[in-house]
Amino acid sequence: MPSRTWYFQGGDDGNFRILGINTVSGQGLPRASHLAVSQELKQRSATFSLRGVVSNERYVTRQEKDWLVKHQEPLGRPHAVCGALIPIRKNAEWWALSQDERRAIFEERSAHIQLGNKALPAIARRLHHCRDLSAEEPFDFLTWFDFSPEHEPIFDDLLGALRRTVEWEYVDREVDIRVERL
Amino acid sequence: MPSRTWYFQGGDDGNFRILGINTVSGQGLPRASHLAVSQELKQRSATFSLRGVVSNERYVTRQEKDWLVKHQEPLGRPHAVCGALIPIRKNAEWWALSQDERRAIFEERSAHIQLGNKALPAIARRLHHCRDLSAEEPFDFLTWFDFSPEHEPIFDDLLGALRRTVEWEYVDREVDIRVERL
Repeated sequence: MPSRTWYFQGGDDGNFRILGINTVSGQGLPRASHLAVSQELKQRSATFSLRGVVSNERYVTRQEKDWLVKHQEPLGRPHAVCGALIPIRKNAEWWALSQDERRAIFEERSAHIQLGNKALPAIARRLHHCRDLSAEEPFDFLTWFDFSPEHEPIFDDLLGALRRTVEWEYVDREVDIRVERL
Repeated sequence: MPSRTWYFQGGDDGNFRILGINTVSGQGLPRASHLAVSQELKQRSATFSLRGVVSNERYVTRQEKDWLVKHQEPLGRPHAVCGALIPIRKNAEWWALSQDERRAIFEERSAHIQLGNKALPAIARRLHHCRDLSAEEPFDFLTWFDFSPEHEPIFDDLLGALRRTVEWEYVDREVDIRVERL
């Protein structure tokens, strides 16, 4: 069975050069020059080490999923040399909501899927879940994106729009790590 | 932060005596005389070692959740000396479904919550998620129940009814471990 776990480690080497680490809310992350993105935990001195698991979708309907499958592109396209890792954590209030309440905030009130769809096919992404790996995980989700340099404004608009949603009122920690592929 | 991880280990000692291990579908589990239920991993020779994390609910609506909170009882009531651990795994087809499709099978077609509610307050339970702990977990869910001896028929009826649902067509591994508290 292929592993569904991905590691994102900041340090002196890695397959991506870090251009900036911006703390959006809550506690930040230590500086590093490089980001190693891998399915294996590298045994080296990392300044930060994050991990997440690719899992089943939690909110999309069949109709939304079919649309996504048709329109989204894979990570690693040759021209997609810009990358971004956005770790976020949501507060206890979010996790105490019921499924219908979370779905309503996620899509009916915040249009999370609709906003994301507007950035397709320029922006490719993979979502990783961390919350249930242990009770001590620093983030709930890690989202990894790539895109070509001319599409960075589309990506920035997407982040800006998401951060203004009702859903984001439940985000209590967010870091925005921009990288370029080496 | 309190740990949300629980361990269930079969071996020569533990806080519960194993009365029987019944393989319902798929691969079984090795024999053991005792089950240790703990929030710490015991460093001893276990014949099987299962772990899961208490997480947010994935299907219940606010109305269903409020009803549950009002009617369910906690684990560990003095008279609830009978226990059961039911590890299950669902197949790849289940995990490829969208959220609305899984909810429809779970409740609208299989009445999972309604069936469970009929067993309240006699049966207390705690659900643990395992699927996202690693790609090699032997089960997706561990559910731990306790009840008093006179309520065992209610529990058996609940299991029987669930196993006849459409939802259970997606279950490809299930073991039923019955214990008594020591």
